[in-house]
Amino acid sequence: MPERSTPAKRYERLEDRIRALIAQGVYPAGKKIPSVRRMGAQEGVSVTTVLEAYSRLEAAGLLEVRPQSGYYVRATNGAGFATPRTTQPAAEARPVTRSDFISRLFHDANDQSLVQFGAAVVHPSMMPLKALSRLMTRISRETPEAASGYDFPPGHLPLREIIARRAAACGCTFSPDDVLTTFGCSEALTVCLRAVTAPGDLVAVESPTYYKYLELFEWLQLRVLELPTSPDTGIAVEAVEDAVRHRGAKALVVVPNFSNPLGALMPDAKKAALAQLASEYDFPLVEDDIYGDLASGGLRPKPIKAFDTTSHVMLCASFSKTLPPGYRVGWAVPGRYHARVLHLKRAMTSAAAGTLPQMVLAEFARSGAYDRHLRTLRRQLGDLRAQHARTISDVFPPGTRLTRPKGGHLLWVEFPPGFDAVALHARALAHHISIAPGPMFTLSGDYGNCVRLNVGHPWDARVEHALEVLGRLAGEGG
Amino acid sequence: MPERSTPAKRYERLEDRIRALIAQGVYPAGKKIPSVRRMGAQEGVSVTTVLEAYSRLEAAGLLEVRPQSGYYVRATNGAGFATPRTTQPAAEARPVTRSDFISRLFHDANDQSLVQFGAAVVHPSMMPLKALSRLMTRISRETPEAASGYDFPPGHLPLREIIARRAAACGCTFSPDDVLTTFGCSEALTVCLRAVTAPGDLVAVESPTYYKYLELFEWLQLRVLELPTSPDTGIAVEAVEDAVRHRGAKALVVVPNFSNPLGALMPDAKKAALAQLASEYDFPLVEDDIYGDLASGGLRPKPIKAFDTTSHVMLCASFSKTLPPGYRVGWAVPGRYHARVLHLKRAMTSAAAGTLPQMVLAEFARSGAYDRHLRTLRRQLGDLRAQHARTISDVFPPGTRLTRPKGGHLLWVEFPPGFDAVALHARALAHHISIAPGPMFTLSGDYGNCVRLNVGHPWDARVEHALEVLGRLAGEGG
Repeated sequence: MPERSTPAKRYERLEDRIRALIAQGVYPAGKKIPSVRRMGAQEGVSVTTVLEAYSRLEAAGLLEVRPQSGYYVRATNGAGFATPRTTQPAAEARPVTRSDFISRLFHDANDQSLVQFGAAVVHPSMMPLKALSRLMTRISRETPEAASGYDFPPGHLPLREIIARRAAACGCTFSPDDVLTTFGCSEALTVCLRAVTAPGDLVAVESPTYYKYLELFEWLQLRVLELPTSPDTGIAVEAVEDAVRHRGAKALVVVPNFSNPLGALMPDAKKAALAQLASEYDFPLVEDDIYGDLASGGLRPKPIKAFDTTSHVMLCASFSKTLPPGYRVGWAVPGRYHARVLHLKRAMTSAAAGTLPQMVLAEFARSGAYDRHLRTLRRQLGDLRAQHARTISDVFPPGTRLTRPKGGHLLWVEFPPGFDAVALHARALAHHISIAPGPMFTLSGDYGNCVRLNVGHPWDARVEHALEVLGRLAGEGG
Repeated sequence: MPERSTPAKRYERLEDRIRALIAQGVYPAGKKIPSVRRMGAQEGVSVTTVLEAYSRLEAAGLLEVRPQSGYYVRATNGAGFATPRTTQPAAEARPVTRSDFISRLFHDANDQSLVQFGAAVVHPSMMPLKALSRLMTRISRETPEAASGYDFPPGHLPLREIIARRAAACGCTFSPDDVLTTFGCSEALTVCLRAVTAPGDLVAVESPTYYKYLELFEWLQLRVLELPTSPDTGIAVEAVEDAVRHRGAKALVVVPNFSNPLGALMPDAKKAALAQLASEYDFPLVEDDIYGDLASGGLRPKPIKAFDTTSHVMLCASFSKTLPPGYRVGWAVPGRYHARVLHLKRAMTSAAAGTLPQMVLAEFARSGAYDRHLRTLRRQLGDLRAQHARTISDVFPPGTRLTRPKGGHLLWVEFPPGFDAVALHARALAHHISIAPGPMFTLSGDYGNCVRLNVGHPWDARVEHALEVLGRLAGEGG
């Protein structure tokens, strides 16, 4: 602020600015602020002006001098505690929207004091963190330039090769060139859907459906048609045909294997029928297969892509449910829509995905370590689903219904009609328990008596106790 | 494929499928294919069926047996070389579009045999790869769970604190809570623009402008108004006012510091005037400050955000020009549009950005290492711009014009009217030189006589020779 003004004006202006920066936490309590010399250069004022402003702030009790060190923001107002912030209570009449629940769930997911039945996350103790960390260190040392460089779409070839190879092992026939890597499955779904729909288009989904889809549809300005769905076998094929033939649906989004939140596993015949429908009516079928690798026992179930002879299926998936989600590596196999998706992906985020994470995951899968990890993780999650389900059966009120998925880490609980799952969510939080209430998973207003529970954490007394508390609260009507 | 069919049919079907997988590179030449037992399980057929199919493929010369090891895809057809692939020549009359150039540039950016004047990338030899790698190893060992977990928007708090602190040092006043971290600057721009525009809206930009913006506008279905821009001081303020007042522009996208491709540096007065216009006419000003940290000499120039008293400026930036781009960490400070951007970001990619990369960059900046690195990098790039400009002056044809930016790593060359930069691009590639021809940077058809040159690589005889070749080719008319 080099300008013509009186010295007093200059002190005051600088003082106000520093007060604002302290109030906003840019210069946090207890921390050093820039030296007099540096602040002068930064703000374009003389050292004298800064010294005067700092002295005034010191006199006002906002700064303190530490000999040989410099000026610090005072930790408190002198009484031992900082002044409480202005409260921001929610207005009484404000309706709780899905978006609020999602914000809450995301926020709570990082809160170690909560029992995490809410967000669909597998606990890090079940992840091969050390092996991945060692691999990361090795790769970044051996090939520093490659590992830190820009990886342009379609993404890291060795990883795309692995993805095609693994997909072949469950019935798919596509080449590494058909694969695009992405920043997680979320981005894969976003670019696929954007590439094949225009604002105002109608999209059909399972009901209940993953709340993030509903948020995504809203932002892509799509209309949503929620279709009947069996907790055992997934979406109703006749309903899909009706949606496309008679109701103008332009695309279908489904989770064929261990859907979210129901945990449904489509039989192969249904997968084949859906692929056939997409082909016959020429619509894009967006398939989210993020849970497919988490099957318990037997072969990994096939994706719908395995039955897709006309490239109408857009397969999306990621490693974020089977390996640490912080890597953010997913992929899309968009079939006949490949060129549009590639261009869109490039326009949206430029790079394919983080370079080093892709190299690490490719090597982890290539070496066989991923398959060994999956064998353990599948068994662990199978045990956890059974353990949670047993306890729920013991401690939840009579009349409760419960899914028994064959894979994944999610259970869906249905309480008797009239039950208030939103009230249960609030009361559970007061007991340090996070859950995902049913109304998050629909636009319809249904599922007010339902709750989704994540079981992807080690079984212990704390978890068992939390289920007991939930059961007691539920017995009191939510 | 467990079904009622004759054994012969089953062999043939499996044989066809394996042929297809080999042809598509899923089972690459020279590599082992799944064992008989595993293939049987994978395809739902008996071991006998697989053995028969493998024998037939062996007889046909596609597989070979290696004792004690298994079946391998034969490397070649026996003549020493694989059969060439089917050619896919471009149709004679196809117009070269920007999208083709961008694909070409991205493709060429990974080609080590080319001299890289094309993509705007700083060479990894100028990056602190070892220090970052050590930091990564340390952090992932010390806090494995945090480093690999899901980082939900708005992103890693210590990094957001650093971003607010650094911005304060160049005149901005926003808090860490105002910052969202993103997958690079590209995603920051995508979510900011999507949040404040609807399909069909008109957006004003500099001309020439960064080609990725044009690609992004196309995908967001925005219309573009390209405005007069000085290579010294950037976009014309009067033109912006006219665009907003009389032509219906809904948003402005500008690069205030060392713009791409012109390298213009807006004076503070112009920045203040643009912020004032955004406030007066109530439109979002999307500011891309990705090059601001690459100023040579003197203070780092202020972003427009520093003059934004009404929160109309949406500041976007990243570390991808000053640190290795593979980290993919950028940020947005969307001002009054924050809530919409946060929701959109969450819907699009779920996580804020890679977790470990954010932790590494926060610590690198906090420790002072980033500032030390910047001092070196700024000097290097200043020298490189001067060195390239000197040689260009010596070897390019008379009548050439050349920018002299005060920061960044891009030069803009204007040849005499009528010069064909697209032809030069093709001829340069034949000499293993990648450049970015002017028509990429506009929808207007202008700049056919211009070329953007990246100078972000060490100066050596190969680079010098490449400039001489370019000069000679340019002297021949492109």
